[in-house]
Amino acid sequence: GYAKIDNHRAIRSGSPEVIYCEGKSLEHIRGIVRHMLDYKEENIMATRAGRDVFEAIRDVTDEAVYYDKARIAVIKRKEIQKIPGGIAVVTAGSADIPVAEEAAVTAEVLGNSVERIYDVGVAGIHRLFARLDQIRKANVIIAVAGMEGALASVLGGLVDKPLIAVPTSVGYGSSFHGLSALLTMLNSCAAGIGVVNIDNGFGAAYLANNINRINRKGYGEHE
Amino acid sequence: GYAKIDNHRAIRSGSPEVIYCEGKSLEHIRGIVRHMLDYKEENIMATRAGRDVFEAIRDVTDEAVYYDKARIAVIKRKEIQKIPGGIAVVTAGSADIPVAEEAAVTAEVLGNSVERIYDVGVAGIHRLFARLDQIRKANVIIAVAGMEGALASVLGGLVDKPLIAVPTSVGYGSSFHGLSALLTMLNSCAAGIGVVNIDNGFGAAYLANNINRINRKGYGEHE
Amino acid sequence: GYAKIDNHRAIRSGSPEVIYCEGKSLEHIRGIVRHMLDYKEENIMATRAGRDVFEAIRDVTDEAVYYDKARIAVIKRKEIQKIPGGIAVVTAGSADIPVAEEAAVTAEVLGNSVERIYDVGVAGIHRLFARLDQIRKANVIIAVAGMEGALASVLGGLVDKPLIAVPTSVGYGSSFHGLSALLTMLNSCAAGIGVVNIDNGFGAAYLANNINRINRKGYGEHE
Amino acid sequence: GYAKIDNHRAIRSGSPEVIYCEGKSLEHIRGIVRHMLDYKEENIMATRAGRDVFEAIRDVTDEAVYYDKARIAVIKRKEIQKIPGGIAVVTAGSADIPVAEEAAVTAEVLGNSVERIYDVGVAGIHRLFARLDQIRKANVIIAVAGMEGALASVLGGLVDKPLIAVPTSVGYGSSFHGLSALLTMLNSCAAGIGVVNIDNGFGAAYLANNINRINRKGYGEHE
Amino acid sequence: GYAKIDNHRAIRSGSPEVIYCEGKSLEHIRGIVRHMLDYKEENIMATRAGRDVFEAIRDVTDEAVYYDKARIAVIKRKEIQKIPGGIAVVTAGSADIPVAEEAAVTAEVLGNSVERIYDVGVAGIHRLFARLDQIRKANVIIAVAGMEGALASVLGGLVDKPLIAVPTSVGYGSSFHGLSALLTMLNSCAAGIGVVNIDNGFGAAYLANNINRINRKGYGEHE
Amino acid sequence: GYAKIDNHRAIRSGSPEVIYCEGKSLEHIRGIVRHMLDYKEENIMATRAGRDVFEAIRDVTDEAVYYDKARIAVIKRKEIQKIPGGIAVVTAGSADIPVAEEAAVTAEVLGNSVERIYDVGVAGIHRLFARLDQIRKANVIIAVAGMEGALASVLGGLVDKPLIAVPTSVGYGSSFHGLSALLTMLNSCAAGIGVVNIDNGFGAAYLANNINRINRKGYGEHE
Amino acid sequence: GYAKIDNHRAIRSGSPEVIYCEGKSLEHIRGIVRHMLDYKEENIMATRAGRDVFEAIRDVTDEAVYYDKARIAVIKRKEIQKIPGGIAVVTAGSADIPVAEEAAVTAEVLGNSVERIYDVGVAGIHRLFARLDQIRKANVIIAVAGMEGALASVLGGLVDKPLIAVPTSVGYGSSFHGLSALLTMLNSCAAGIGVVNIDNGFGAAYLANNINRINRKGYGEHE
Amino acid sequence: GYAKIDNHRAIRSGSPEVIYCEGKSLEHIRGIVRHMLDYKEENIMATRAGRDVFEAIRDVTDEAVYYDKARIAVIKRKEIQKIPGGIAVVTAGSADIPVAEEAAVTAEVLGNSVERIYDVGVAGIHRLFARLDQIRKANVIIAVAGMEGALASVLGGLVDKPLIAVPTSVGYGSSFHGLSALLTMLNSCAAGIGVVNIDNGFGAAYLANNINRINRKGYGEHE
Ligand SMILES: Nc1ncnc2c1ncn2[C@@H]1O[C@H](COP(=O)(O)O)[C@@H](O)[C@H]1O
Ligand SMILES: Nc1ncnc2c1ncn2[C@@H]1O[C@H](COP(=O)(O)O)[C@@H](O)[C@H]1O
Ligand SMILES: Nc1ncnc2c1ncn2[C@@H]1O[C@H](COP(=O)(O)O)[C@@H](O)[C@H]1O
Ligand SMILES: Nc1ncnc2c1ncn2[C@@H]1O[C@H](COP(=O)(O)O)[C@@H](O)[C@H]1O
Ligand SMILES: [Mg+2]
Ligand SMILES: [Mg+2]
Ligand SMILES: [Mg+2]
Ligand SMILES: [Mg+2]
Ligand SMILES: [Mg+2]
Ligand SMILES: [Mg+2]
Ligand SMILES: [Mg+2]
Ligand SMILES: [Mg+2]
Repeated sequence: GYAKIDNHRAIRSGSPEVIYCEGKSLEHIRGIVRHMLDYKEENIMATRAGRDVFEAIRDVTDEAVYYDKARIAVIKRKEIQKIPGGIAVVTAGSADIPVAEEAAVTAEVLGNSVERIYDVGVAGIHRLFARLDQIRKANVIIAVAGMEGALASVLGGLVDKPLIAVPTSVGYGSSFHGLSALLTMLNSCAAGIGVVNIDNGFGAAYLANNINRINRKGYGEHE
Repeated sequence: GYAKIDNHRAIRSGSPEVIYCEGKSLEHIRGIVRHMLDYKEENIMATRAGRDVFEAIRDVTDEAVYYDKARIAVIKRKEIQKIPGGIAVVTAGSADIPVAEEAAVTAEVLGNSVERIYDVGVAGIHRLFARLDQIRKANVIIAVAGMEGALASVLGGLVDKPLIAVPTSVGYGSSFHGLSALLTMLNSCAAGIGVVNIDNGFGAAYLANNINRINRKGYGEHE
Repeated sequence: GYAKIDNHRAIRSGSPEVIYCEGKSLEHIRGIVRHMLDYKEENIMATRAGRDVFEAIRDVTDEAVYYDKARIAVIKRKEIQKIPGGIAVVTAGSADIPVAEEAAVTAEVLGNSVERIYDVGVAGIHRLFARLDQIRKANVIIAVAGMEGALASVLGGLVDKPLIAVPTSVGYGSSFHGLSALLTMLNSCAAGIGVVNIDNGFGAAYLANNINRINRKGYGEHE
Repeated sequence: GYAKIDNHRAIRSGSPEVIYCEGKSLEHIRGIVRHMLDYKEENIMATRAGRDVFEAIRDVTDEAVYYDKARIAVIKRKEIQKIPGGIAVVTAGSADIPVAEEAAVTAEVLGNSVERIYDVGVAGIHRLFARLDQIRKANVIIAVAGMEGALASVLGGLVDKPLIAVPTSVGYGSSFHGLSALLTMLNSCAAGIGVVNIDNGFGAAYLANNINRINRKGYGEHE
Repeated sequence: GYAKIDNHRAIRSGSPEVIYCEGKSLEHIRGIVRHMLDYKEENIMATRAGRDVFEAIRDVTDEAVYYDKARIAVIKRKEIQKIPGGIAVVTAGSADIPVAEEAAVTAEVLGNSVERIYDVGVAGIHRLFARLDQIRKANVIIAVAGMEGALASVLGGLVDKPLIAVPTSVGYGSSFHGLSALLTMLNSCAAGIGVVNIDNGFGAAYLANNINRINRKGYGEHE
Repeated sequence: GYAKIDNHRAIRSGSPEVIYCEGKSLEHIRGIVRHMLDYKEENIMATRAGRDVFEAIRDVTDEAVYYDKARIAVIKRKEIQKIPGGIAVVTAGSADIPVAEEAAVTAEVLGNSVERIYDVGVAGIHRLFARLDQIRKANVIIAVAGMEGALASVLGGLVDKPLIAVPTSVGYGSSFHGLSALLTMLNSCAAGIGVVNIDNGFGAAYLANNINRINRKGYGEHE
Repeated sequence: GYAKIDNHRAIRSGSPEVIYCEGKSLEHIRGIVRHMLDYKEENIMATRAGRDVFEAIRDVTDEAVYYDKARIAVIKRKEIQKIPGGIAVVTAGSADIPVAEEAAVTAEVLGNSVERIYDVGVAGIHRLFARLDQIRKANVIIAVAGMEGALASVLGGLVDKPLIAVPTSVGYGSSFHGLSALLTMLNSCAAGIGVVNIDNGFGAAYLANNINRINRKGYGEHE
Repeated sequence: GYAKIDNHRAIRSGSPEVIYCEGKSLEHIRGIVRHMLDYKEENIMATRAGRDVFEAIRDVTDEAVYYDKARIAVIKRKEIQKIPGGIAVVTAGSADIPVAEEAAVTAEVLGNSVERIYDVGVAGIHRLFARLDQIRKANVIIAVAGMEGALASVLGGLVDKPLIAVPTSVGYGSSFHGLSALLTMLNSCAAGIGVVNIDNGFGAAYLANNINRINRKGYGEHE
């Protein structure tokens, strides 16, 4: 009774098989991994994976590597082909780093090079300015912020690259578990910001990868 | 059957009589004004007053002056004693100006000098920086912003003066009539921000005046 | 007392001057347009512009053209340089067309070529499939849907191009003025979707343009 | 002090006695079961029953059988009379299976035959199409989905059978514990969908059974 | 630029062409009707149609009939084949009647016979009991209620037929435009209730029709 | 650092000292009880008191009695003077009993006689009717219900006594922790219902006692 | 097709026939009134009645009297029997008076004597204290307040009579049309407050009347 | 990989380095403290610090002092310069004390003298009046209240000093974790109240300190 494994995406785009581990039993995850090892040849990536999940995967294969801040386990079976042009992952606070790492590691597994620019929130805006040149060099920018999420608005006014905003559940009280940051990002007076779900680092990286790949020879399904 | 007029505040603090006109009939407002002219000697200020309200007040007295952007009518009967130290009223967009003017005119009627710094929202942050020295000279800062309201957070990191944030109902869709800006301001990662109700320029000015007056000889009830 | 005109963006990216007309008086808009004509040389675009706004702009200049479904007025002063690679604008219903047109016209004014694929919502999924090849040819896809907004999820599973989802306020009852579609899009089980504010066709096009321009010679600020 | 047992429904419709176990003490549940065994002759079904509840019931009777994915315990005392015409239970993801199983087992206990079609969510719509013929053979369809819940809309456009949608609390962030899926389902542009409470597999099956039984000789209260 | 007309449903199920008129221009509606008259042979039904819409349709064809309480216009071109077994439409108050009529007329146009049982809300429960026998004779029951929507719960405990609940926006204050009734209906302690969107009489009838048609010879697509 | 004990109410109305224990440390509670025993002569009642709280109180005095379903501890030091006229406490389900017991025990401690009529929710309305005569004999009725809370509406149409409705947090999914029942009760189409906070059995009893006492010789402060 | 007139309540309790006019056509209202005049002998009361409704009723009978602040029309056909013990209706602001008048006039029509104590909100608490003796003389107190609704909490701590709180929709911004006052009243730390729907003056009076009548010889159904 | 330490604020305003400990690992906190001790000379303050956090800090330095009610650890390295003029911290209930202590200790660490006036909520308003003279002597007042939060409104009408309101998450049911108190405070009919986030004692104190410091010689950055 395992989930039917989603194999068409890998065929179409060369991206890895992805297992979303939240709420799946260790046994279930071991089964999915075994099945993927037997029937696919793609890289495998398990997100929302605690250390216990990683160890369960290690029961199945020695090849798995664990990214603990990102809570991602990766089974690398093919060389990941690098895409030119980087992705900048920027966070407002240090509490936003786990979500940022989910984005950064996902982007790397998908073949992108990533710049991490962390803890440069707008309450101390000189820190953001100090890193602006580095941010502007990227092809795509992922802004990760909780609480009031103003980082995305400020960045949106400073760059003309595609900007993906990830609200995080960091905060308390009227942050309402990320709702405050989410609304801020959706209502940004700086145009050109695409927002993903609260804490969804994976989705942000997936979109950034899709952006970074358009019309580049040697990548994706259309080459 | 008119509202009992709130006369104790004037006695205590030298502030004007205030009439909140939203939802009051013109006849009712004329009656309140007449009563105040007969029994009080304070200045009178009518807020949320459309031009029709102003004209109704003009039926009662020639002395009334109208501030149309602020939607405030003022009947000046005593010289307003100026307090040293100014209040900066800053807005993100030009659509926030009516709320800012409610704050600015109220603050002036209460005896404060006001600097207006409008349309310096964070989507074009160079405009804010260009005015920063002027803002920093003020004793109290009122930040007025709708949409995502990020102006307050950014200002909060740049100044160490008391900062009062006024979310406005400017925006659409998921701004939810000011809720987005309100949550942003309450969750600001910059500490030291006091938030008032959506569109409440009057309340912001009232608080700013209270702040500006503490322990200043010659003002307020304790002198 | 006009808004300070945001001129730095034009300098940086060659994009037109944009006036958001919602809630601005005709007089105010005429003033902004006059100022732009005098001091800038960029194309000018007025969004959320009713026919009355268009006529006010015509008082100032004969050059203005009106896109009534999009509610956009454009004053073209320079040739718009076309970017290779198109943007597909897809809608679920016919009631979503005004938002889609805001996106489509904006994208065109910014130099993109646009494919319109309207009224292909998931309740009659054969209509969507009939247009899939056309959609897949685009570089970036904008999915516009109200009510339950499921179009974005379905499209997200069928394409590997960057997908921008625009929830609309089309619907009634528990659609809560676009909230239902917004939540659907944010929670899509198809990864790689960036969401903008309810009814924000302009923002979607702006982001799509930023995506379409990265690293293309002859466009944007970095060339 | 036990709950008065609801016996009139069994008399009317031949359906089993149902105990909703959430929040009831094991002692309380044992008491209810004992009372039912003594005074009724119907089948007994305990929902939202963890393994501990099942074991408590086993203390009272050996006849109890446990369906662990469904979290249902059943005490079968009469043969269940089968109704012609099946119910298809369809899920978007594998995380929705517990809710689907609550529906499927309930429907079976009520005498229906059930087809399970799991993990065919719209992000990989080919999987749904592969099972469509099987789904269309059913008399009633139950669509179970969390996150954005788009499965119900897509199915609604593909079948003309009564469709019952069950939003699940699967998801995170702005799924708001099932609210996103609930709103999607209520606002579906495909007509003919009846929605039940979040995670309410039992209620969906109960309604499906009522639908499946109308005017069929040999079942229900009217024969 | 008209909406592509959804013709596959008519082919599959013999149901009429439906035009949802909310937010469509009279010109647009006339165009859709003309197109349907030219290319289809089904009955046509326009919902959410004010008298002005009806008159616009009359410009195109004399055959249109108007149901003003239901706000539905019908162009009958074929005899509607009656299905055995009726649908009871029950309302709590008289203010719920327009929504009930949308359901009742839709059900009739789809070939069902309808019993109307109006203004029998639970605040005067003797009125409901007086009509219970009549309600129980129906195959499917549609319960329409605003304010607190308790009618559905009470009915749910009294009948074992499929029950479709339609919350209405009737009420004020904390009814929050139908949210209160919607939540009541979703949380009913009586099992077997399928809920549709606030004020969605059309959808309720559509579902009721689908229920009423399963496995009946001579109707629908499978005969 | 203990809370100042609220002694004026006891002086005014003969009601007991009340300690709300939620979130107070055992040490804090022991201190409050000791202080009350030393300086007051009233009965003492501790609400929201788990068994550990009760045992902490027993460390201070042997006189304490524990009502475990109600989670109330009482230290009786004076005879409670009975008021003529009873209070009926009615619940929809058995899961609502803890809240009902908080109400019932509080009402008794305040001197009222209480009829408990439990598990008579509207999904099986014959059970409610079977107890109606008993309910109608009371002076005041407290209706306690979670999920959709329809009990209050139905009762409101059947009695003309003051009716106090207590929504409970019983339910799941879209019951939103009692919000559904709360809205139902506030929007009841039966007039004459006063609603208290979710799960607030104490407050309902306190109000019922105030109602039961008006103008009765020998009770309350005004005699 | 008029609403079935609810006549059993009048028989049981001597209370007037009530017509809720919101959303009913003038023709419908005239019909209801005519029917009541023909078949009943009770007093008739029309609430939420604008002056146009009153005039429509005057078309039917000359006896109707209009209370314009309360928006209530009354047709008096029997002498209203006075109950001993008064009801105090207290408001925070003057904008709350229409809701208060709906309560006051309803209470009077039901036979109670009413004290009106208006515009004594807690922002000027000396005004409330000045009226406290008068308030305390009442049997039941109705507190009517918008904005933050704190009046109910303060009153609740000062009186031990049954207190009915009516939140009003007076306010703006984050008052969310009465939600703020509603939540305040439900969460009052003063026990013994029953809350009714936003702006529901009628319901408050109806409950107050029920309270005032218990066990009084010569009134109600049980005498 | 530690957070970049925010050192510019200390330089500007003489305020301590602040570490917000919620969600940071003990190891991370130890690292931040060590870095601050090595590179800064300011006082250090750790908020939202449980006893385990305090002990982790003690591993690094013996100088740390712990305020357990406030959950704050302080490392004092310079004498704190006292500002003339005190801050009154007032709470409604005793459950609000932890938030109040966070405010009080923060204010003291920032150099202010603090008056604590606890458990004087409006349900027993005589207790508030008994302390009013003491409250009025302060320069700034911080009002801390959960449940319905009415304390701020009442205080706002009694004082003309800047008033900062802190809603707390104290309460249950429809207090919605502080939302009720938050809305009350934002909608206060007493003008001049600045609101901070739910439970944000730190932010209130920070603002109070900024207010207390304006234009005082010998403090802050501008002297
Ligand atoms: N962290 C994440 N957040 C949201 N979606 C994810 C995440 N990780 C994986 N997914 C999505 O979940 C799918 C796999 O889900 P499943 O089949 O349940 O393992 C992938 O194809 C991704 O689209
Ligand atoms: N624009 C405003 N927003 C909020 N409160 C206001 C405003 N203008 C006046 N007020 C308050 O309303 C009070 C007067 O209300 P009223 O007695 O109804 O005229 C004043 O004392 C102010 O505290
Ligand atoms: N009153 C209604 N409420 C909800 N959906 C409706 C209503 N009337 C028609 N519909 C749906 O709207 C579709 C037609 O939409 P359109 O193509 O925009 O005219 C029909 O196929 C129905 O599924
Ligand atoms: N279960 C309860 N729910 C709500 N309020 C309560 C409850 N029990 C006691 N109270 C109130 O809490 C007050 C005591 O609070 P405290 O001084 O914090 O112990 C009493 O005077 C009651 O008004
Ligand atoms: Mg930091
Ligand atoms: Mg601007
Ligand atoms: Mg269509
Ligand atoms: Mg899957
Ligand atoms: Mg009626
Ligand atoms: Mg039961
Ligand atoms: Mg007033
Ligand atoms: Mg207390």
